[in-house]
Amino acid sequence: MRALILHANKFGTKVITKSNWPKGIEPEKRKSLAEDMKNCLVVFFCVENGDTEKQLGELYQEILKTADEVKTANLMIAPFVHLSKNIAKPNVAKELYEKLMKKFEKTNFIIKSSHFGYHKSLLLDIKGHPGSFRYREFY
Amino acid sequence: MRALILHANKFGTKVITKSNWPKGIEPEKRKSLAEDMKNCLVVFFCVENGDTEKQLGELYQEILKTADEVKTANLMIAPFVHLSKNIAKPNVAKELYEKLMKKFEKTNFIIKSSHFGYHKSLLLDIKGHPGSFRYREFY
Repeated sequence: MRALILHANKFGTKVITKSNWPKGIEPEKRKSLAEDMKNCLVVFFCVENGDTEKQLGELYQEILKTADEVKTANLMIAPFVHLSKNIAKPNVAKELYEKLMKKFEKTNFIIKSSHFGYHKSLLLDIKGHPGSFRYREFY
Repeated sequence: MRALILHANKFGTKVITKSNWPKGIEPEKRKSLAEDMKNCLVVFFCVENGDTEKQLGELYQEILKTADEVKTANLMIAPFVHLSKNIAKPNVAKELYEKLMKKFEKTNFIIKSSHFGYHKSLLLDIKGHPGSFRYREFY
């Protein structure tokens, strides 16, 4: 599992079309036309072949640690296939994405997510202080 | 070598401070306070341990191919360490970045680059059509 965790002034995304790649992907139900968030941690993450709840748990802990360091309670979870050539089957990626969202349900974070399984535009405004870009791998 | 190639409406970056990581990094001379570009291909690329001009040549070819497909002559080259845990020594990364810029000198592209060796803010507005996000690895 790989992740790019960014401390943002602003995140925005608009749904364009359903994705038909990787083969067999089932896009989640479209919950909105767009998602936006200000002053947040943006968590792009890519589920790879072999990933289980172990790697997901490590990502979850890393998000908690980073949110604490940059002092934000706003999280934008962004499933993102474009961080690896060894991506998981889409049903596994979707399941782990849903489980990650569930982990945050009982927390005090304000949490949103970008749509799983869609082509989307992306607006990113990243702060740029040391530590506002963090690349992580969990194996 | 890893790369994230994005088809953007807009790219912007502002220099914040010199980076002192990875150890031994020598930031390039600051050429401006900020770099901006509209309707361009943004090429984030990360030089990894063992990368040579072979991988750089493959990246160069991929940029040409992608620019042709999305029909743009505007290129923003963005050295980006946050795509791998196996990064090259900073002098190697800098040398290959400079060589990449040199390769484009004799082409008709309008080419800019974000600063090597600085913490920078980042503004990205990505189109979102299928093919506007491309992750590549060159080994």
